[in-house]
Amino acid sequence: MSRTRDAESTRSEILRVAFDEIYKHGFQATSVNGIVAKTNVTKGAFFHYFPTKNDLGYALADEVLRDMMLNRWVRPLNAYRNPVQGMVKTYKKLMEATTDQELSLGCPLNNLTQEMSAVDPVFRDKLRDVLQTWIDETEKHLRKARDDGYLRPNVDPRMAAEFAVMVEEGSFAVLKNLGDRKVYRSLYQGFREFMESISSKRNLDL
Amino acid sequence: MSRTRDAESTRSEILRVAFDEIYKHGFQATSVNGIVAKTNVTKGAFFHYFPTKNDLGYALADEVLRDMMLNRWVRPLNAYRNPVQGMVKTYKKLMEATTDQELSLGCPLNNLTQEMSAVDPVFRDKLRDVLQTWIDETEKHLRKARDDGYLRPNVDPRMAAEFAVMVEEGSFAVLKNLGDRKVYRSLYQGFREFMESISSKRNLDL
Repeated sequence: MSRTRDAESTRSEILRVAFDEIYKHGFQATSVNGIVAKTNVTKGAFFHYFPTKNDLGYALADEVLRDMMLNRWVRPLNAYRNPVQGMVKTYKKLMEATTDQELSLGCPLNNLTQEMSAVDPVFRDKLRDVLQTWIDETEKHLRKARDDGYLRPNVDPRMAAEFAVMVEEGSFAVLKNLGDRKVYRSLYQGFREFMESISSKRNLDL
Repeated sequence: MSRTRDAESTRSEILRVAFDEIYKHGFQATSVNGIVAKTNVTKGAFFHYFPTKNDLGYALADEVLRDMMLNRWVRPLNAYRNPVQGMVKTYKKLMEATTDQELSLGCPLNNLTQEMSAVDPVFRDKLRDVLQTWIDETEKHLRKARDDGYLRPNVDPRMAAEFAVMVEEGSFAVLKNLGDRKVYRSLYQGFREFMESISSKRNLDL
């Protein structure tokens, strides 16, 4: 029992440190030695959990990035009766909670995709899967919104989910590229405008 | 006269070849030797025009990427009386004209920004300037649209320009990351929905 728990916490510690290093410096510029030096773990233990640096990268995509995306963009929607309102409020909260350093670093999923998709097809497929899940889960909430009468009847939940996720992801990319967090207000206003236009409610109480 | 013309065409040839190589392989993975080998130019001549590889990169940003952005997204708007209609039609035309290879490579401005902004602040500022000009020029068209009564009176042309450029840029990023060009239809429909929602006209004739 306890040994399993220790193993899990060692593995999690490696993943947590690796995420921070790779988010700041990129996957290729981060070395196993650099990660090990920031943990209480030996290099032997590292290779026990992750036989290669790529295995570590795959686990980051499958577990850390996927969970982070769900925690940030999808799970908060459960707290809202109207998912359309939930999406607009979640976007605003996330933008406001993002530090200047995070804004200048951009979205970790987009960064890793840009860096590694052309280099390694396994990586590409795993990162794609996170983005796809983001769209699929958003679609489920929008489908529920439609069934509950919160969407205009002619709105396709899949279309709206694909566009909304593009806005969520594209906003972080553009804010990083511009280096001007004030622009977030326009991006929020635009996203809100779009969500209101597909909504059946006049007042989203935002 | 003729010598000036030759010099200009040599410089243009280098820039054109360099753009293709860097678009396909990235800036850091492209060597001066590799570029020279694909032109009729000697290495000496290359260094006459571009003393360092970075100088070449700066010229790509200032000239090629800037001009490409204007030709693709801004100049076509002059053909439309209603800039709102022009933006939606231009988006659609560009998406449809983009080859599968270009879609999988993504937007050259976004790629270079992702690769080089953290590495070199001069690069970062020049690429930012292209993105800023994209927004500024779009704003001019939307300001004209408002003056001519094509926008709802309470719409801020700056807000709309910042959001629209994010959609234009973010769409290419997401289509690249997903590797599925069919999603463009949803992105187009979402963009159109947004543009219609800020428009004073019911029928944009799209």
